[in-house]
Amino acid sequence: MIRVPAEPAGRLSDAWRHCVGTGRIELALRRDYQDSLALLQRDIGFRYIRGHGLLDDGMGVYRPYDHQGSRHIHHAFTYLDQVVDAYRELGIRPFLELGFMPAELASGDQTVFWWRGNVTPPRSHQEWADLVRATLRHLVDRHGLEEVRTWPIEVWNEPNLADFWQGADEQAYHRLYEVTAHAVKDVDAALQVGGPALSPMSDDWLDRFAEFAERRDVPVDFVSKHAYTSGPAQHVPFGAHQTLAPASDLLEQFATPRDRLKGTRLDGLPVHITEFNSSYRPDNPVHDTAFHAAYLAPVLAWGGDLVDSFSYWTFSDMFEESGVPTALFHGGFGLLTHRQVRKPTYHLYAFMARMGPELLARGDDHLVTRHPDGRITVLAWAPVDPTGETPGPDRHPVRFSLPIGAAAEAFVRRSTVDEEHGNAYTAWRHMGSPRSPRRGQLDVLHEAAEPARTHRRLPVHQGRADLDLTLARHEITLVELTPIADETPPWWDEDRLLGREPS
Amino acid sequence: MIRVPAEPAGRLSDAWRHCVGTGRIELALRRDYQDSLALLQRDIGFRYIRGHGLLDDGMGVYRPYDHQGSRHIHHAFTYLDQVVDAYRELGIRPFLELGFMPAELASGDQTVFWWRGNVTPPRSHQEWADLVRATLRHLVDRHGLEEVRTWPIEVWNEPNLADFWQGADEQAYHRLYEVTAHAVKDVDAALQVGGPALSPMSDDWLDRFAEFAERRDVPVDFVSKHAYTSGPAQHVPFGAHQTLAPASDLLEQFATPRDRLKGTRLDGLPVHITEFNSSYRPDNPVHDTAFHAAYLAPVLAWGGDLVDSFSYWTFSDMFEESGVPTALFHGGFGLLTHRQVRKPTYHLYAFMARMGPELLARGDDHLVTRHPDGRITVLAWAPVDPTGETPGPDRHPVRFSLPIGAAAEAFVRRSTVDEEHGNAYTAWRHMGSPRSPRRGQLDVLHEAAEPARTHRRLPVHQGRADLDLTLARHEITLVELTPIADETPPWWDEDRLLGREPS
Amino acid sequence: MIRVPAEPAGRLSDAWRHCVGTGRIELALRRDYQDSLALLQRDIGFRYIRGHGLLDDGMGVYRPYDHQGSRHIHHAFTYLDQVVDAYRELGIRPFLELGFMPAELASGDQTVFWWRGNVTPPRSHQEWADLVRATLRHLVDRHGLEEVRTWPIEVWNEPNLADFWQGADEQAYHRLYEVTAHAVKDVDAALQVGGPALSPMSDDWLDRFAEFAERRDVPVDFVSKHAYTSGPAQHVPFGAHQTLAPASDLLEQFATPRDRLKGTRLDGLPVHITEFNSSYRPDNPVHDTAFHAAYLAPVLAWGGDLVDSFSYWTFSDMFEESGVPTALFHGGFGLLTHRQVRKPTYHLYAFMARMGPELLARGDDHLVTRHPDGRITVLAWAPVDPTGETPGPDRHPVRFSLPIGAAAEAFVRRSTVDEEHGNAYTAWRHMGSPRSPRRGQLDVLHEAAEPARTHRRLPVHQGRADLDLTLARHEITLVELTPIADETPPWWDEDRLLGREPS
Amino acid sequence: MIRVPAEPAGRLSDAWRHCVGTGRIELALRRDYQDSLALLQRDIGFRYIRGHGLLDDGMGVYRPYDHQGSRHIHHAFTYLDQVVDAYRELGIRPFLELGFMPAELASGDQTVFWWRGNVTPPRSHQEWADLVRATLRHLVDRHGLEEVRTWPIEVWNEPNLADFWQGADEQAYHRLYEVTAHAVKDVDAALQVGGPALSPMSDDWLDRFAEFAERRDVPVDFVSKHAYTSGPAQHVPFGAHQTLAPASDLLEQFATPRDRLKGTRLDGLPVHITEFNSSYRPDNPVHDTAFHAAYLAPVLAWGGDLVDSFSYWTFSDMFEESGVPTALFHGGFGLLTHRQVRKPTYHLYAFMARMGPELLARGDDHLVTRHPDGRITVLAWAPVDPTGETPGPDRHPVRFSLPIGAAAEAFVRRSTVDEEHGNAYTAWRHMGSPRSPRRGQLDVLHEAAEPARTHRRLPVHQGRADLDLTLARHEITLVELTPIADETPPWWDEDRLLGREPS
Repeated sequence: MIRVPAEPAGRLSDAWRHCVGTGRIELALRRDYQDSLALLQRDIGFRYIRGHGLLDDGMGVYRPYDHQGSRHIHHAFTYLDQVVDAYRELGIRPFLELGFMPAELASGDQTVFWWRGNVTPPRSHQEWADLVRATLRHLVDRHGLEEVRTWPIEVWNEPNLADFWQGADEQAYHRLYEVTAHAVKDVDAALQVGGPALSPMSDDWLDRFAEFAERRDVPVDFVSKHAYTSGPAQHVPFGAHQTLAPASDLLEQFATPRDRLKGTRLDGLPVHITEFNSSYRPDNPVHDTAFHAAYLAPVLAWGGDLVDSFSYWTFSDMFEESGVPTALFHGGFGLLTHRQVRKPTYHLYAFMARMGPELLARGDDHLVTRHPDGRITVLAWAPVDPTGETPGPDRHPVRFSLPIGAAAEAFVRRSTVDEEHGNAYTAWRHMGSPRSPRRGQLDVLHEAAEPARTHRRLPVHQGRADLDLTLARHEITLVELTPIADETPPWWDEDRLLGREPS
Repeated sequence: MIRVPAEPAGRLSDAWRHCVGTGRIELALRRDYQDSLALLQRDIGFRYIRGHGLLDDGMGVYRPYDHQGSRHIHHAFTYLDQVVDAYRELGIRPFLELGFMPAELASGDQTVFWWRGNVTPPRSHQEWADLVRATLRHLVDRHGLEEVRTWPIEVWNEPNLADFWQGADEQAYHRLYEVTAHAVKDVDAALQVGGPALSPMSDDWLDRFAEFAERRDVPVDFVSKHAYTSGPAQHVPFGAHQTLAPASDLLEQFATPRDRLKGTRLDGLPVHITEFNSSYRPDNPVHDTAFHAAYLAPVLAWGGDLVDSFSYWTFSDMFEESGVPTALFHGGFGLLTHRQVRKPTYHLYAFMARMGPELLARGDDHLVTRHPDGRITVLAWAPVDPTGETPGPDRHPVRFSLPIGAAAEAFVRRSTVDEEHGNAYTAWRHMGSPRSPRRGQLDVLHEAAEPARTHRRLPVHQGRADLDLTLARHEITLVELTPIADETPPWWDEDRLLGREPS
Repeated sequence: MIRVPAEPAGRLSDAWRHCVGTGRIELALRRDYQDSLALLQRDIGFRYIRGHGLLDDGMGVYRPYDHQGSRHIHHAFTYLDQVVDAYRELGIRPFLELGFMPAELASGDQTVFWWRGNVTPPRSHQEWADLVRATLRHLVDRHGLEEVRTWPIEVWNEPNLADFWQGADEQAYHRLYEVTAHAVKDVDAALQVGGPALSPMSDDWLDRFAEFAERRDVPVDFVSKHAYTSGPAQHVPFGAHQTLAPASDLLEQFATPRDRLKGTRLDGLPVHITEFNSSYRPDNPVHDTAFHAAYLAPVLAWGGDLVDSFSYWTFSDMFEESGVPTALFHGGFGLLTHRQVRKPTYHLYAFMARMGPELLARGDDHLVTRHPDGRITVLAWAPVDPTGETPGPDRHPVRFSLPIGAAAEAFVRRSTVDEEHGNAYTAWRHMGSPRSPRRGQLDVLHEAAEPARTHRRLPVHQGRADLDLTLARHEITLVELTPIADETPPWWDEDRLLGREPS
Repeated sequence: MIRVPAEPAGRLSDAWRHCVGTGRIELALRRDYQDSLALLQRDIGFRYIRGHGLLDDGMGVYRPYDHQGSRHIHHAFTYLDQVVDAYRELGIRPFLELGFMPAELASGDQTVFWWRGNVTPPRSHQEWADLVRATLRHLVDRHGLEEVRTWPIEVWNEPNLADFWQGADEQAYHRLYEVTAHAVKDVDAALQVGGPALSPMSDDWLDRFAEFAERRDVPVDFVSKHAYTSGPAQHVPFGAHQTLAPASDLLEQFATPRDRLKGTRLDGLPVHITEFNSSYRPDNPVHDTAFHAAYLAPVLAWGGDLVDSFSYWTFSDMFEESGVPTALFHGGFGLLTHRQVRKPTYHLYAFMARMGPELLARGDDHLVTRHPDGRITVLAWAPVDPTGETPGPDRHPVRFSLPIGAAAEAFVRRSTVDEEHGNAYTAWRHMGSPRSPRRGQLDVLHEAAEPARTHRRLPVHQGRADLDLTLARHEITLVELTPIADETPPWWDEDRLLGREPS
């Protein structure tokens, strides 16, 4: 029995919803993408969104041409404006990642992903700086300086990996960073620039990034890195399986920058985990499961103690790094897959979005908060085994004594997501894994994606209610308790209702 | 075990959705009404809608005035057009009930209901006939003759009750009918006119109506009456309790016109039950319950054998015959109450709307149909005790052997409504019966009104699947079985999914 | 030539959009009403809305009943909550007018309007006070105290007229006011209560109201009165014609309370004109015309100098004081008539809503403002003859020299409303005055209601552009000038475009 | 004066709206595309839509993979289903063009367009046939056989051009056609297959296509070709200028297949012009102008006499054959550009959609039709000079005597599009050609794109009304005349309206 204190331990950080990841920016032009993002913002409400490919050819920004015998550059914002306008209409702001390289500005032809992002340094750092300045000036003109000052600007993505930056050339990255950071500040000194957007296990780059920033006196407004926990991949066609490190490993990855940068020039800067997930592969079915929601629950509950944001990679399966998905469920990163079918991890975020600002209790399997109006909200989750050796416990009890206050009874509403409930993936498997479900099947999947809801009354004694929960395998559950102000009229006699059992 | 034959016994009649009732027509101007009707049409799809008050003062149709010293009549269709336009946009057509009497055309001042419908004969039958002709001509002009010929036109409401027709004066009704029917046919001979819209237990009026029609050679295109099963009312403030006759009593009331009119001039005419429900009171909480859905299920399953339509009175609690409702749930007739909160009986209709056209089996607690694409749909319901003496059984088993065809397995999706599920009324009681729930409470009620959904796979042997259902108290349940075409790829190994129990 | 200075003369008051009037509150349940209000809020954006009938029987608030042999009162907010919830979703707040009297609380049976508002004092001032307290407590519970503190609460309507308050009994009104004001403050001392909502030409009541407030030490947070300018009515069926006093007469009526209350206890309180219009009749065709927009333009331009708000009576023709309208255009007060057909006066408000905050110039036929981004906005209007003796001038020239700033050219966009343009009424007359237009006719009317738009470029010399306007009869025109940042590429040659005249 | 006869000359063909072109199918996933298409379907209502790239890599259909040591092909319809579902929701059907070649099925690496469609024959005709069969079977499964039988299936695009089909190899095309046609018929014999989708000036291919079809006994259900009238291009950065042949040249191009195929096996088959426009370039500003609408008007009026359909290439500027557009107006083919800004040619189509089925008169500058309800609709257009030598006449008079029938007056509504009205392009030029307009500028452009509307009454004498039109330069105008049924009440006196001139 967890006796939850009536006095809050503090405020619950909302670093968990500061930012979310997206497939390449061009995909934001799509309807399914925007419909999904609208749902996300209604139920969760992220503040920023970050993805690759802002300057890729598909966005059509960098446009050299010849006129009267000489070469000129046009910077065109037709699509960028459509994307950012859509974001703002949907109540979200861009977390700008500058990259990859326009083909005609690139120094080489190495590309990454099915959609061929060019990962080589610019042929001309001057033209790159012009491109950065022109883009930011345009955004400032269109959206206002006050607004754009709130948009973080990150230089490139995972330069420490040769897949993402030719040769993983650290000196070349530092040069790119320096040129870019100065170009950003040319536009306005209060714009926020940062990096180096490292992949996991490369924190030694941080040390040298700090040293470089100091040595060259380069502006850095925030520090960023990524975090994933998956082991080696076992491949199948269009997919892969991996075991995972424990979720605590993610928290440990979050924690290192603050420690490591102590005493450096970058000490105290905001730290953004600009990507995190379990597996880094967009074709691992773990992303579609209830297991995944239960696995990540403690990360959302505790992550905000360690960093300023940690951005789930990515909100939607509208994502093409390894090609066009061949089936509705395909192990994509998304909180929802195509057609706005929500996955269990979507509900984990939606449940977090219903927690109150006062942190009352937090533990290995629970988080308890209170709203200003007195409602108490409990998020509880079952333990999981990320090694794949056991299926995890099929029942997990949690008991709370909750400080409800003066009412005689509490209204209790429970929302459940587990292997059977709030789980479109299981329904889809039951249906026979239809690769491209028909309208009627999609309707069933949308219904199956809805968490199971139950409600009841709970007695309150001396200001406290006892809540007994038994979680199913991989369950995450949200319980909301509201003190009851009973308006049942004095003449009401339940027993006169036809079919009611005598009380 | 019910062995359902593979050969259909016939087609399932859809008389159950031919028509639905509504509070007075003027209420159709309201937004909550229209929002609710839109939901209804999406989930159920009624063809016609019938309510009182088409010609009442609130509709502003009959408008005498003086000009240059003499009296004239203006017929104004400002609101009538807004209402009928809205109906047609929502995919439903009016079942026109002519009444009640405009105050300035009335011969007396007797009124019915909180909203004061005048129930006296016209001062001038000529002006009444003018009013009828003008109204129908206007509708024909606006909507087209072909369209209006499909709209039944019913003369008055329950003239056999002194509350609805001054003195329950049968001769006066016959005169009104005759004048009206001829006025209708003046506009177009193919318009459909009928009556006499009798209240229950008054079938002797039918005999005399047939005799009158013959004697006076009056056009009658259909015959209408009403059916209710409630006993005497026990009053409480803003409410009443009643016991009910068994549901079979409703079916017996439906059956009498065809029998009784055999051999008369009205033999073979369409018979419309233009109102039916359990209790005739808009303040009996039985209407809000799961009991009610289970009680009416057999009526929907069998009623179409007996009549051409039976119109549930009424679709929404936006209804004011006994005044403005004082609480969200108040025992109103509605399939849904205000704010589009759906009741269990709404789901009974929505479940019926998912049944297929081929009738495979039908019994005391079930209805089994098939769709052209092979899907089998089972509606099952628990027995109820309408006397109030017992709560009814708390468990009711039903077992079927269903002809699925060649697939190896069937996908089974079950939707459940009972005392706990798909039951906003129970949730509202748990909340403390908030008379006017807040936004957050309404959200909970909307969720609680959603049927519980489960899904699984069922093996098929020799073309048949065995379906075991155990119904909870007052449960209605819809089960849809779809043969599975399995698209799971050959390389899929469930056991490699993290957290899965070894199969 | 009006030389508009570059330095603003001050801020333009937006008292003109502080509040707008509505037909009785119950009508807010209707869809046409809400659709119209949504349009209004999109184009204009009023802050408050005020109408009669908050406590009338149609709202169902005051509900006496007997239980166990004694009489009780239920206060029911089913409809009030639907209305206020809708208002808030539409971004507008209620300006609460307490009245009229519920029939069962009334001391007499005198009513006003087709919809029979009871205008007699309460049988029991205690029960009235209970009703006021219960209503406000409920609103505070639902919407929060901070919110409700911003809603003005006005006691009754035009008590100085015997039609609206039995006998125009001043003592009885003072008693009602006192009881009500104390009831309001019982709920929360910071709620805002006021009155006396006088009809025009009755400012002597103000003196005695101030004296009464002082003598009895009664709370008064604001003072309210009404203003109309119409002369005697010449009646036709369903209509009336009247001449009008000049618009300046409205401004004079606005001005009196501040003067008159100087030195009294009410000195310095906010003054709200809680109703104003030209004619006080809802069946005078003047409301539908371009004349009316031009007539009221100076009132909107200058009124904010004199009062804290002046509330146009009323936003929509969904209004039933003299019965259900018999034709689409019927001389109703509305800024728009049914089916969201906008009238010229709607556009006057929409044009005002596009004016900037900096007041540059103001005159008998114009208002010039500037936006923070440098856009200059000109509203100009033609003179009118409210006596009906002349049609007013058919051409009215206005010329401006406008301070545009550094650009070489300005983009000029003009929106015109006059007898032919932005004038659905004229189109409707051309169509043959169809009383209840069909869908296709409504489409034409919606198009005809759209202002005519033209656009061109204007040269700028030494920071100034000369704008020559010629206004047609009864025209109101909005001109927006934007400095041009030309992005035409250097290679563009207009003459190469097919069909272009050589430049 | 054109005396329009009262007896119709026949029915007006609607071949003009049978089909419309689109940028590559993948773009249909985008929101701007779908929003634009929704508008188009509301105002025009095309039946079919045809574009390139159905099988391109961006659609992700053809997906080879290795499993257990051998190669397999997966056919994936994730995006194809999203596209076709969207089309059907928007009330339009696909006109399927099979092409281009998936990279992994291609025999070479030649590509066309910025988006790199592979234009080489398949490496394996067997795998290509499998791909065609799998795609069509999937569409039949999803949408039903009856539905898919109505979708024309065209084999490849412009194989007679080496840019679109490697080497313009006719034998290779015939082989592809043959394999494809048989694959189509394998799925269902009633599916409609055709070709050869020729570019202009290549009708000799038709002769050989007919001969080939006969010789090899290959199914052909329809014949298709393209038509354009532009001359050589004069290039500027991101654009080109061209002169045009007269519009009659398009009609001549339409006419040849029926003549040429007389007596062949293909005689009498439906002929579809599956692409037509003035210029074939997506960067010629002529597409944005009023000139263009006037130029094409006679083509829409007469084209249906010559072919079964002629499909405007393309509905939207969401089109990327020569890259991402660098400015809102960029000379794209679209009837509308990005952000749903409609061009003059959009209105030409919308005007055509308002014409009635009875063809009363047709000439060089006009088309007159009647609706079943008696409305007469006149489309008139100004002459244009496609050589660029003159700007065309600045005034063009047209006069009609129109058979209105018995009414005393007609209501006349005119919608005008010319250089100044209904012309967002002109407004955009006035604004300074903003490459990526802001929200406020887009609002202005949307307004500027609206045709100018006027309305008046016209007297009718002996059943006829005289209509005098003067067209401005490049004007297209739609006039609708409706006989007036006057409902003005007898007491109405216009002169009593304030501000009216005495009549």
